[in-house]
Amino acid sequence: MKYGIIGAGNVGLTFAHYLSISDKNFLVFTHSINEKSSVFRYIPESAFTEDFDYLVHNSDTIFIATPDYAIEKTIDSINDISKQKNIVVFSGSFSSKEKRIYNLHPAASIPQPVFDDNFVKEIVFTAKSSPFIEKLKNDLQIQIVYISNYSPLYHAGAMMASNFITILLFAAENILKNFTKNKNDIKRLMKSFSSTGLNAYFEKHKISGPISRGDLSTIDNHKSALRGKKEGIIYRALIKYGVNHLNAKK
Amino acid sequence: MKYGIIGAGNVGLTFAHYLSISDKNFLVFTHSINEKSSVFRYIPESAFTEDFDYLVHNSDTIFIATPDYAIEKTIDSINDISKQKNIVVFSGSFSSKEKRIYNLHPAASIPQPVFDDNFVKEIVFTAKSSPFIEKLKNDLQIQIVYISNYSPLYHAGAMMASNFITILLFAAENILKNFTKNKNDIKRLMKSFSSTGLNAYFEKHKISGPISRGDLSTIDNHKSALRGKKEGIIYRALIKYGVNHLNAKK
Repeated sequence: MKYGIIGAGNVGLTFAHYLSISDKNFLVFTHSINEKSSVFRYIPESAFTEDFDYLVHNSDTIFIATPDYAIEKTIDSINDISKQKNIVVFSGSFSSKEKRIYNLHPAASIPQPVFDDNFVKEIVFTAKSSPFIEKLKNDLQIQIVYISNYSPLYHAGAMMASNFITILLFAAENILKNFTKNKNDIKRLMKSFSSTGLNAYFEKHKISGPISRGDLSTIDNHKSALRGKKEGIIYRALIKYGVNHLNAKK
Repeated sequence: MKYGIIGAGNVGLTFAHYLSISDKNFLVFTHSINEKSSVFRYIPESAFTEDFDYLVHNSDTIFIATPDYAIEKTIDSINDISKQKNIVVFSGSFSSKEKRIYNLHPAASIPQPVFDDNFVKEIVFTAKSSPFIEKLKNDLQIQIVYISNYSPLYHAGAMMASNFITILLFAAENILKNFTKNKNDIKRLMKSFSSTGLNAYFEKHKISGPISRGDLSTIDNHKSALRGKKEGIIYRALIKYGVNHLNAKK
């Protein structure tokens, strides 16, 4: 297949690097190639084009790696040139009834372009099952989990399991900074806390801590301590959900 | 040192196993030894006692591994027998002005007793620096990060980085279950999402996703989709914090 990528941001460049190490035929559209010079170590300069028409004409499958709000306009621009192209959006929110338009959503947090050769191979993508997606999976050698449909609800769930973990750790860090100024110590603590928190979900599938012991006075003390702090809203929301979850299991 | 452990729950038994594989002299107080028979593979039956006085008399350092609300009463009971013992609480909330009372808080989520020989070695404990804690660290060969003091605020931060990750993943799972019923697929997705979310914090120290791209219309769509769902409160709290965090960095 001949691939085109529109959008040279975190996802577009990460994917372009993967196509490059996989020896695929591909082009990346960007408004200004010069600005990308720092990535030419990972993606050959010859893969970049500032010519949108050229990219569309020379691709049979076009990945749209723009922010969600620009997807519709980008699809229109492609269709103005050709209505024969397979279009793949990396979006977890956007969905189209058109047959040629597919979703391939990386189940990943990608805060900047990742040029680690194993990254794309190790993440899991979601997609709706179809012969085209099957072909794509085989050609790109990626992992796919099939889901029934895309909607803002799916995307919200996806964000909760990825971006929100990052946000939660920033909130915890902001509190723990009051107890040690040593950045390396905070990192050690956060690694210890978070890896066991993840493990409690994946290995035991069980919440731990004061709420699981019914220790509500400790929770009340935490709430008082967080009064007036911006982390308080996160604390109250997650405690409430956790208590409901534990009660529902009884 | 001769160690006593009061409380044979998740933390007490996990620690007792560690003392056992480290060939330490220790006793564990429990109200009913018979109930513990399933753990005798990991902790010798001879280490358990139902005699509180016996444990206190035969220990120079006593770990209190009860829920937080029972700590004060347990300290009183020890002091009624002897005022010479070093007392160590595993609590992140409790603090005492008394000199003989120390905190050693595992920076970990422990949803059930862990008898993996490496678990205690790999987690990090927090403690306030003192000659006794230094002696304990060397004798037990554990990792310690020193913090300035213990308070409900510290403990709330600790929970956010550990138990709350577990709760957040349950919330995300509950949403994603609407899109695939395959439990193994959900686990694969959650692993992919969460490991990259953690990585965004530890490696890039950067939030990703729609808010980092200023894509507020996507966020609004998520909020609408979550209206009436119990995950909505978590979504709104974390988005708000994430937006503030990103704005503060500008």
